[in-house]
Amino acid sequence: MSIDAASNFCTIIPAGGSGTRLWPLSRSDRPKFLLDLFGTGRSLLQSTVDRMAPFGTAENIYIVTGAGHVDAVREQCPEAAQGILVEPSPRDSMAAIGLAAAVIHHRHGPTVVGSFAADHVISGSVEFNRAVGEAIEVARQGYLVTIGIPATRPSTAFGYIQVGDPLDIAGAPTAHHVTAFQEKPDSLTASRYLATGKYRWNAGMFVMATDVLLGHLAELRPQLHQGLTTIAQAWDTDRKDEVLAEIWPTLDKVPVDVAIAEPVAAQGGAAVISGGFGWDDVGDFNSLAALLPTVDGFGNKQIGDENQIVTKKVAGSIISANSSRTIAVLGIDDVVVIDTDDALLVTTRARAQEVRNIAAKVADEIPDPPV
Amino acid sequence: MSIDAASNFCTIIPAGGSGTRLWPLSRSDRPKFLLDLFGTGRSLLQSTVDRMAPFGTAENIYIVTGAGHVDAVREQCPEAAQGILVEPSPRDSMAAIGLAAAVIHHRHGPTVVGSFAADHVISGSVEFNRAVGEAIEVARQGYLVTIGIPATRPSTAFGYIQVGDPLDIAGAPTAHHVTAFQEKPDSLTASRYLATGKYRWNAGMFVMATDVLLGHLAELRPQLHQGLTTIAQAWDTDRKDEVLAEIWPTLDKVPVDVAIAEPVAAQGGAAVISGGFGWDDVGDFNSLAALLPTVDGFGNKQIGDENQIVTKKVAGSIISANSSRTIAVLGIDDVVVIDTDDALLVTTRARAQEVRNIAAKVADEIPDPPV
Repeated sequence: MSIDAASNFCTIIPAGGSGTRLWPLSRSDRPKFLLDLFGTGRSLLQSTVDRMAPFGTAENIYIVTGAGHVDAVREQCPEAAQGILVEPSPRDSMAAIGLAAAVIHHRHGPTVVGSFAADHVISGSVEFNRAVGEAIEVARQGYLVTIGIPATRPSTAFGYIQVGDPLDIAGAPTAHHVTAFQEKPDSLTASRYLATGKYRWNAGMFVMATDVLLGHLAELRPQLHQGLTTIAQAWDTDRKDEVLAEIWPTLDKVPVDVAIAEPVAAQGGAAVISGGFGWDDVGDFNSLAALLPTVDGFGNKQIGDENQIVTKKVAGSIISANSSRTIAVLGIDDVVVIDTDDALLVTTRARAQEVRNIAAKVADEIPDPPV
Repeated sequence: MSIDAASNFCTIIPAGGSGTRLWPLSRSDRPKFLLDLFGTGRSLLQSTVDRMAPFGTAENIYIVTGAGHVDAVREQCPEAAQGILVEPSPRDSMAAIGLAAAVIHHRHGPTVVGSFAADHVISGSVEFNRAVGEAIEVARQGYLVTIGIPATRPSTAFGYIQVGDPLDIAGAPTAHHVTAFQEKPDSLTASRYLATGKYRWNAGMFVMATDVLLGHLAELRPQLHQGLTTIAQAWDTDRKDEVLAEIWPTLDKVPVDVAIAEPVAAQGGAAVISGGFGWDDVGDFNSLAALLPTVDGFGNKQIGDENQIVTKKVAGSIISANSSRTIAVLGIDDVVVIDTDDALLVTTRARAQEVRNIAAKVADEIPDPPV
């Protein structure tokens, strides 16, 4: 159970959430991170693992997931088997990331860890590697480091990072203090943020040393710190299940931003690296469509078996053929047609954020629903 | 091979055409007339047969269909087996109706026949029976009789009948001369027709005596008359196939309107009965939608298994669930979603007339297409 000593770095990948806004592609038993949305042959989770290869071997990868998905995660990422940690139940991101950090700390001593969501899409590996490299340098100085994405539109779908003064750290020329982490703003506030040029999108990427992270937790969330430390000490013993069963259900359910990032930023202990790479959380079919290549001169996007799709007088659509069925679409712009073996969704890109509502309605109204 | 002598009337049902505007519900091997579009348990063809029950027994029913559909027709209408006539190839409505009339004439002598399409929808049996009764009375006086539907909107999808002076025939109070049959008009012409109150929609219902029909054919289309008479004489003999194979391919391909209705009207020999019943040719999904009951307060229409359909923020839609799949539609008004086991159509009611174009495109582009 050794990690790549040269890097002294571990990746943490929280792999949870079902992504109901991508229903019926994503399901509770086939969440977004397990899907190959871009036809590359690799799921979003696998792509996340692949992306971290420059920062250590597979032994340096820790994936935190639920009991319902662990088999699929093991199948997709067999090389990371040692680092797959199973949460007995979802208790939000602080518990998930804190669990991995505590286990890594217990196994390997103080280690810089970087947490990256399992279901985000990133393009531009040179820039990504540069940003992670800078973040690791700054984390070694004791900072809670995040990688912020330059905001290019007044999005209300993302949290924001308010950038402060530059930090002067060797090997991290883009590092700045974080003045504050801001929750998802309303439209007017988002426009104001954008106008100042002082805000980055919060992509949920956190890099810090395990001892720093656990130190913040000990100060800010002592009960959570105590619980996670106790669990980590039992993790590689035969007492693991017993301790987990006793302690896990009592842990605070709190996002990592609220638990440590915001208070640490307020104390001046957080830093942000500028991430000049393509990033998206693929939050819904509209953002998925934006990431896919067009298949014709009309901005249409397709997923799955394109040979099964026929369109006429259609522009800006996203059509997914995931069954052997022929799909014919005529005369509707910006339509979303997601066909699977047992469920079909028809909506518009403008309604993409509301897909979770119709997925919930399906679960309510259909006996034995495909959820 | 006797017909109901009391009525001395036979029904002719031309059952051809695939109805590509209802693709993928209708297919070349499952044309519109074989479909149960209204969930009544009876296809349009079966409903047409049922509707004619007041005018004679099953032996009085003649169905003219193609070789590709004869098995399905026999299965749906076993009681009409004696009267199922198979066309070797489609040669338009005059050949189809003329064949049945010639066979009936040869089998039973002069008989009043009424031709009714296999794939139209009619509501209001009292009015329908009244109109057919009147038409039979007028046909007995030697007229070519049609039943015209009062035009209620300036439709460009139907042909029109121009109504002339009243006829004074006992038992037929609504009978009028036909001044002319008009082809499908443009929108302006249709509005002019509607404004005069002198036009009826041509529902393709023709009632006349076989000797009158054959007499008109002998005068107007002597080659067609000769061919059909020769075929009819051979029909119930072992020379049938040989004679059909020789003569059928040589017959004029011409609609009944053009072959006899229009010229006979010009000679003053055509009459129209006012048909005050609901009638539609279910030409596309928009007209089908108009005929279906709404399932909610938003004008949504459904076909098939309604328990599989979930909608939210949808009005004026028509959704057809013909597979076991769940169908969820969110936030699109007037959408048409037709789901079958092997093909899915998504379009709008406004594009309903163009569905045949996308069906043709599917046939062109998909290997082994579901057509």
